[in-house]
Amino acid sequence: MKNYELKHLPDRTEKPRDFGLTMAMDKGLSLRETEDFIETSGEYVDVVKLGWATSFVTPKLKEKINLYKEAGLPVYFGGTLFEAFIIRNQFEDYLRVLDKYELSYAEVSDGSIDMNHDEKCEYINKLAQRATVLSEVGSKDDQKIIPPYKWIALMQKELDAGAWKVIGEARESGNVGLFRSTGEVRSGLVEEILTKIPSEKILWEAPQKAQQVWFIKLLGANVNLGNIAPNEIIPLETIRLGLRGDTFMHFLDMEKIGK
Amino acid sequence: MKNYELKHLPDRTEKPRDFGLTMAMDKGLSLRETEDFIETSGEYVDVVKLGWATSFVTPKLKEKINLYKEAGLPVYFGGTLFEAFIIRNQFEDYLRVLDKYELSYAEVSDGSIDMNHDEKCEYINKLAQRATVLSEVGSKDDQKIIPPYKWIALMQKELDAGAWKVIGEARESGNVGLFRSTGEVRSGLVEEILTKIPSEKILWEAPQKAQQVWFIKLLGANVNLGNIAPNEIIPLETIRLGLRGDTFMHFLDMEKIGK
Amino acid sequence: MKNYELKHLPDRTEKPRDFGLTMAMDKGLSLRETEDFIETSGEYVDVVKLGWATSFVTPKLKEKINLYKEAGLPVYFGGTLFEAFIIRNQFEDYLRVLDKYELSYAEVSDGSIDMNHDEKCEYINKLAQRATVLSEVGSKDDQKIIPPYKWIALMQKELDAGAWKVIGEARESGNVGLFRSTGEVRSGLVEEILTKIPSEKILWEAPQKAQQVWFIKLLGANVNLGNIAPNEIIPLETIRLGLRGDTFMHFLDMEKIGK
Repeated sequence: MKNYELKHLPDRTEKPRDFGLTMAMDKGLSLRETEDFIETSGEYVDVVKLGWATSFVTPKLKEKINLYKEAGLPVYFGGTLFEAFIIRNQFEDYLRVLDKYELSYAEVSDGSIDMNHDEKCEYINKLAQRATVLSEVGSKDDQKIIPPYKWIALMQKELDAGAWKVIGEARESGNVGLFRSTGEVRSGLVEEILTKIPSEKILWEAPQKAQQVWFIKLLGANVNLGNIAPNEIIPLETIRLGLRGDTFMHFLDMEKIGK
Repeated sequence: MKNYELKHLPDRTEKPRDFGLTMAMDKGLSLRETEDFIETSGEYVDVVKLGWATSFVTPKLKEKINLYKEAGLPVYFGGTLFEAFIIRNQFEDYLRVLDKYELSYAEVSDGSIDMNHDEKCEYINKLAQRATVLSEVGSKDDQKIIPPYKWIALMQKELDAGAWKVIGEARESGNVGLFRSTGEVRSGLVEEILTKIPSEKILWEAPQKAQQVWFIKLLGANVNLGNIAPNEIIPLETIRLGLRGDTFMHFLDMEKIGK
Repeated sequence: MKNYELKHLPDRTEKPRDFGLTMAMDKGLSLRETEDFIETSGEYVDVVKLGWATSFVTPKLKEKINLYKEAGLPVYFGGTLFEAFIIRNQFEDYLRVLDKYELSYAEVSDGSIDMNHDEKCEYINKLAQRATVLSEVGSKDDQKIIPPYKWIALMQKELDAGAWKVIGEARESGNVGLFRSTGEVRSGLVEEILTKIPSEKILWEAPQKAQQVWFIKLLGANVNLGNIAPNEIIPLETIRLGLRGDTFMHFLDMEKIGK
């Protein structure tokens, strides 16, 4: 969508995107709200997460997933749901749920449980044979600080195990994992990760505007960002394009413009 | 709603509930938004408050109330509206408004005005003869600190006067009454109240997620919680069921699961 | 809308208003959400801003603008869009966009760019010949502090150049311009401005509730307020009328009521 002509905008990748991804978090939209969301933002969203285990209690789940599918938007269940099945020894049941809802994307995470990393990679490997897997690194517990070298090792092993993308944890609120409890980015952590893992392979959870701005300034218009609330997708797209105050001058080359 | 089978979930009371209540706050939904809200969350909501005096300026009020009623959801006007009539010497007019909208629930509060407590209990008593009464304790003024023994005395007298439940004040924002200005729970206050007043008789206003988590950890899946925003009802239900990171391990007995 | 009778309410101006204005910020509503918004709040809103440059990426833009127009609500594009055209030397293109969408309101601002003030006033003057102009004073950069005497000089010159109202900058978040980074009002600044510029000529951006309350207590029910989120219009109207806790006692004369 470009309603009129503006010059000197940063290049934006187009769908189907392998980078420049936007992952939206739906935590319980109604069917009509889902349609509305697709109308305004379907073009800018690449994949939709049904946050944590909200799919367990959301009415008309199948219909909702179908609305997204018809709009070309893949859907997956939040990693907390995967963990809820695992801790109950119900992995086979989890696979049946993926089948029932015909989901071709899945998330593997260990943000709320302790899991041996080899075991986690086995799950990634198994699921990768039937679905596109996103695997998440980082704890939801703000007391568990993982040092940078370990983030890198975990991410690399998960990619090797078959993950399509690795996700940097932030939760809906944006105050754990990649971020301090204030929401501030752990910038040293991010920069060290990027020395070893290609930016294109990472989906950064960044629910807060200041976090989105930080990543876009560091990595450009086409950084992969996730956990974006439905009504923040259009605002995010303007930030990516340098059309909101926060990144307004960032992409402009004044010499080229002739000013 | 349970879209698939997960073992070892906490027991949740079912409708019509006397405890485990969720009270939602509607501060101006349109008719279509009301329908959407009922679709996603009607099963998890027990009673709907039209926040403070928003009913005065909300268009299509009668139609909205009817939508809720048809879905089996009782509606009541926020306590601030009661107070707005009282301070203007218009109690009789207030009764006529309840009649006009055929409301069978009502709230009595004194969060914004000074009222003799015997007078408040008389209003509770009068209204209890025609409606199910929720009475609220706690000031909206963050400078007025009520000591715990007094919270207990007020609550007991209001229950004795005929209140169905007593509400612990928090406002839409969750930063007065039960909570410090930062939103942190006055935990000593809550624990002292609970030594005298049964948990089932109290509806705790807890608009913020951390507040909901705190009460659920203290009092279980079926604590009565209120002032929940419409789009936070599904998230709250997952917290009650131990299906969000915050309470994920809380209800699990690892020995029972065999892990 | 007044669903029932309450005495002793402050007088509220009625549409079409020249003061007591409420400006809402739409940052990407769908068509159906726009209809819902008009249903609940159309009566209380005087003008709608399509926030910053969201109009560039919003689907069905023409249809949305038409919905607002049919409801008697003028629409304008946020000032950041004006600036995006100016910095690219595309002012003529900007005029063509206003024509294409048949907009009779326009905003002129320099919150994200450096612009000579005479040049800004020229743009105001040019645009005022074809549209009702709102011009904005204040930077989006929280490091750029403008002293009060300069706010006054800028505002006066912009009114002289043809602006219908001058806007005090706050952004969507309410933490720059008129406000400290904490959201607190720069009260000395506001009071000094008001010694020279009539309150009726200023539209104060005040997205946060505490900011709205502050202005209403200082300037009354009919202060012009802007950057109000669509779902905060009804709450704001209750604050204006003294029907929310924050302003509950503010407009009441207890002697007159006879209490």
